[in-house]
Amino acid sequence: MAKTDKPTDQPSDTKKSDRPKARLPRGLADRTGAELSATRAMLEKIRGVYELYGFEALETPAFEYTDALGKFLPDQDRPNEGVFSFQDDDEQWLSLRYDLTAPLARYVAENFDKLPKPYRSWRAGYVYRNEKPGPGRFRQFMQFDADTVGAPSVAADAEICMMAADTLEAVGIPRGSYVVRVNNRKVLDGVLEAIGLGGDENFGRRLTVLRAIDKFDKFGAEGVALLLGPGRKDESGDFTKGAGLNDREIATVLSFTSHNSTSGAAPLLDWKRLISTSEIGTEGIDELLQIEELIQAAGYSDRVKIDPSVVRGLEYYTGPVYEAELTFEITDEDGRPVRFGSVAGGGRYDGLVARFRGEKVPATGFSIGVSRLLAALAALGKLDADAEIGPVVVLAMDKEPARIADYMKMVADLRANGIRAEMYLGGAGMKAQMKYADRRGAPAVVIQGSNEKAAGEVQIKDLVEGARIAASIADNAEYRAARPAQLAVPETEMVAAIRAILERRAQGTLGLAD
Amino acid sequence: MAKTDKPTDQPSDTKKSDRPKARLPRGLADRTGAELSATRAMLEKIRGVYELYGFEALETPAFEYTDALGKFLPDQDRPNEGVFSFQDDDEQWLSLRYDLTAPLARYVAENFDKLPKPYRSWRAGYVYRNEKPGPGRFRQFMQFDADTVGAPSVAADAEICMMAADTLEAVGIPRGSYVVRVNNRKVLDGVLEAIGLGGDENFGRRLTVLRAIDKFDKFGAEGVALLLGPGRKDESGDFTKGAGLNDREIATVLSFTSHNSTSGAAPLLDWKRLISTSEIGTEGIDELLQIEELIQAAGYSDRVKIDPSVVRGLEYYTGPVYEAELTFEITDEDGRPVRFGSVAGGGRYDGLVARFRGEKVPATGFSIGVSRLLAALAALGKLDADAEIGPVVVLAMDKEPARIADYMKMVADLRANGIRAEMYLGGAGMKAQMKYADRRGAPAVVIQGSNEKAAGEVQIKDLVEGARIAASIADNAEYRAARPAQLAVPETEMVAAIRAILERRAQGTLGLAD
Repeated sequence: MAKTDKPTDQPSDTKKSDRPKARLPRGLADRTGAELSATRAMLEKIRGVYELYGFEALETPAFEYTDALGKFLPDQDRPNEGVFSFQDDDEQWLSLRYDLTAPLARYVAENFDKLPKPYRSWRAGYVYRNEKPGPGRFRQFMQFDADTVGAPSVAADAEICMMAADTLEAVGIPRGSYVVRVNNRKVLDGVLEAIGLGGDENFGRRLTVLRAIDKFDKFGAEGVALLLGPGRKDESGDFTKGAGLNDREIATVLSFTSHNSTSGAAPLLDWKRLISTSEIGTEGIDELLQIEELIQAAGYSDRVKIDPSVVRGLEYYTGPVYEAELTFEITDEDGRPVRFGSVAGGGRYDGLVARFRGEKVPATGFSIGVSRLLAALAALGKLDADAEIGPVVVLAMDKEPARIADYMKMVADLRANGIRAEMYLGGAGMKAQMKYADRRGAPAVVIQGSNEKAAGEVQIKDLVEGARIAASIADNAEYRAARPAQLAVPETEMVAAIRAILERRAQGTLGLAD
Repeated sequence: MAKTDKPTDQPSDTKKSDRPKARLPRGLADRTGAELSATRAMLEKIRGVYELYGFEALETPAFEYTDALGKFLPDQDRPNEGVFSFQDDDEQWLSLRYDLTAPLARYVAENFDKLPKPYRSWRAGYVYRNEKPGPGRFRQFMQFDADTVGAPSVAADAEICMMAADTLEAVGIPRGSYVVRVNNRKVLDGVLEAIGLGGDENFGRRLTVLRAIDKFDKFGAEGVALLLGPGRKDESGDFTKGAGLNDREIATVLSFTSHNSTSGAAPLLDWKRLISTSEIGTEGIDELLQIEELIQAAGYSDRVKIDPSVVRGLEYYTGPVYEAELTFEITDEDGRPVRFGSVAGGGRYDGLVARFRGEKVPATGFSIGVSRLLAALAALGKLDADAEIGPVVVLAMDKEPARIADYMKMVADLRANGIRAEMYLGGAGMKAQMKYADRRGAPAVVIQGSNEKAAGEVQIKDLVEGARIAASIADNAEYRAARPAQLAVPETEMVAAIRAILERRAQGTLGLAD
């Protein structure tokens, strides 16, 4: 890619035809005030839980060498599909990270000897996927991950499942409104072996079967049976090729996947018998039994459940896989009630660090979809945006420099007292300034024209109270006289008067008689 | 760029020759624990000040259309040099943002009608420059910006300079250790006009002059004089072509730039006489006089100072420019004392939004170099990493599932009481586990072998106290007996015993007799 391929930029004159259009590429979004503050509050709570569990902070850059990231995107058949890539000056290929797991594997491999093992880390940040955007589906989105590297025991998987439950509750999802579902890739492999799909030569069919199982929530047992067998035609007439299993094989697969979250070990023992011919399958069941025992001992069995319908898309999982699902219903675009669904997931990937080191390094971890989880909190009415109070606005009644200096002094005084404040800096008149203050959510404005200046006073207008009075004609004149929405105070009492307004507002009394 | 140009990825077998190397591209860095927590603490303080001043949060994506970002990098002569770019599926060029100002201009132009005006916003995030990395110079680094759009008055510039001062103090730079220096691009333009370098035909020479002035801190008056005149040869023999000014012209330029930070308006009035022939220069001086007045009225004249040696590299500034400089000395690589220097800067850019809209939209703003400022705090010994206490480690003395479940229950109990805790999840023996606990900075470990289990007890080892006792042979046996570093407690008292150790540690008594 020669540098000269790149477009030259706009010239500096701005004839309309030359002007660039102010627009974002599709699948990207600007974020503002309330959303950012709710996200920040939620991230802090997640971090709190992760750190309580002993996880340490790690941050890797937004892009890396393409070969170091590897290609582990779900449902992508072509190399590097779904990834944004570009060449460095030395012609090496770089890619924006598409998740936070591949960079962790690179980091651990690069710093293996100096890390404590097991190494628990958390990472939060944006990832980038060059995919078709849609509603709620962005090409830049945030993930919040936790991973334990170097722990072969399924106790590490159990721990992360319990941490997932604690995290959901910490951000505000009530117990009973979510379930962390656990399965084991080895059990799936055992089932596949039991129906004769073991071996390298069946790789493609195995993948088709796994993808079919993953559609259980979407299409139900009937749809999955079609995908496992002859194939399935959707409403639009599009046909998805099936895995070509026979009825007995389909029944075996469905006997695993159509069970819903179990409690207790009984179904596990049934399944163990069903795939007793498969060594890997038996190992998988034993691991699930052990996870079940740990979950029970720690008192999490109402929240973390073994559920064989969990598949997870990523190809790199090698053992337990888990998914945090919100079970309450929301209304979809067509007005129908649907389960909110998955907000986080993960699993064990003992092979990822091995890509670099040649020896297996056990690892397990999970990833929260930050905006998914935020959307869930919004759906529950639990968004934690600090009820943001706008700044006090000091109006610029008079634009000569000496008066501007007076106003700046006032805002400096307010800020020195910890009160959010600004001077109106635009060119508009009084009425537009009041409108601006409203728009900013200002709790009050400070007004000092030449008369007030001469009297050493300021006028303070309580906008919250003012709006209330304006809205309520039932208020009697007496009350209005006792606590008017506008008052004149000496300059020296401005800060105290503003503070009183803010306190009334914080107490929520807003001047209402009690 | 055809998709097929991209490299195919590694095959999944891991013969050594096929394995990717775990390495980061140059100029990128991984960040961990203490640095991340110090950064987070500092960012929160900056945000606190910005919000006190009434600035609102905004976040834009990491990449945008190349033409929307424009080319405004300092010292880059070729289009798109210094920028990471790649093509979207529809062949349109995208670039990683190289600063947070160009995306703001795009955002404001795109959302002009619905924004309050003036529109104050803050933005924090990574920016990306495809430049030669060096010590402390990365290709991904964080900026924290604040900008006011829609305010033509220099009161907006003065406000940002005062906010810069407040911000530095909020993060821990003491008053007297920094100065916010203010200049005006119009004054520089006036000087250039006064020496006959006005007009489009002198664009190139003007740029050379501005770059020479910008080197004042580095080369002093003598070096700048060479760069303004015949040119300058550096120690390595490399020659930089000069601007070709004559001695009188050089003297005029230097009379501005060699002044250090002034206090009071006297020098400004002198300069006004010196460039009275230039309309734009006179306007510039008047604006600086007005800023001076505002700064004085608000009580900031000891911190914010007019200083005509400030140039700022970016071509898009149209009025006041400002720079926050730390004045204390650090030791450079060669052991010589040097001023710490600039950590933030900005200015007025009335033309940036106009690129999109065709009409001027006044704007002013500044940008903090986050890792520069963090390095300054480190140099001052003021890094605010929450003195991070590692997790309590519950040792895995016995690896059978039932015992692992016991240990998990213990950590769950500790966490439920808000105590950072983890179970050792690796495969190693007791000695390695103790080493691991040390490495994690654990304040204590909990041990329960089969004997303790039978007795319903746990052993708790106070690692801080233990290390102190081990280090100090002067301790008498009596003292050791009274408060030993290891104690056995009933299981039911584990949480209380750990809490006591953490409290002793927090109080810093660490068991020392007072």
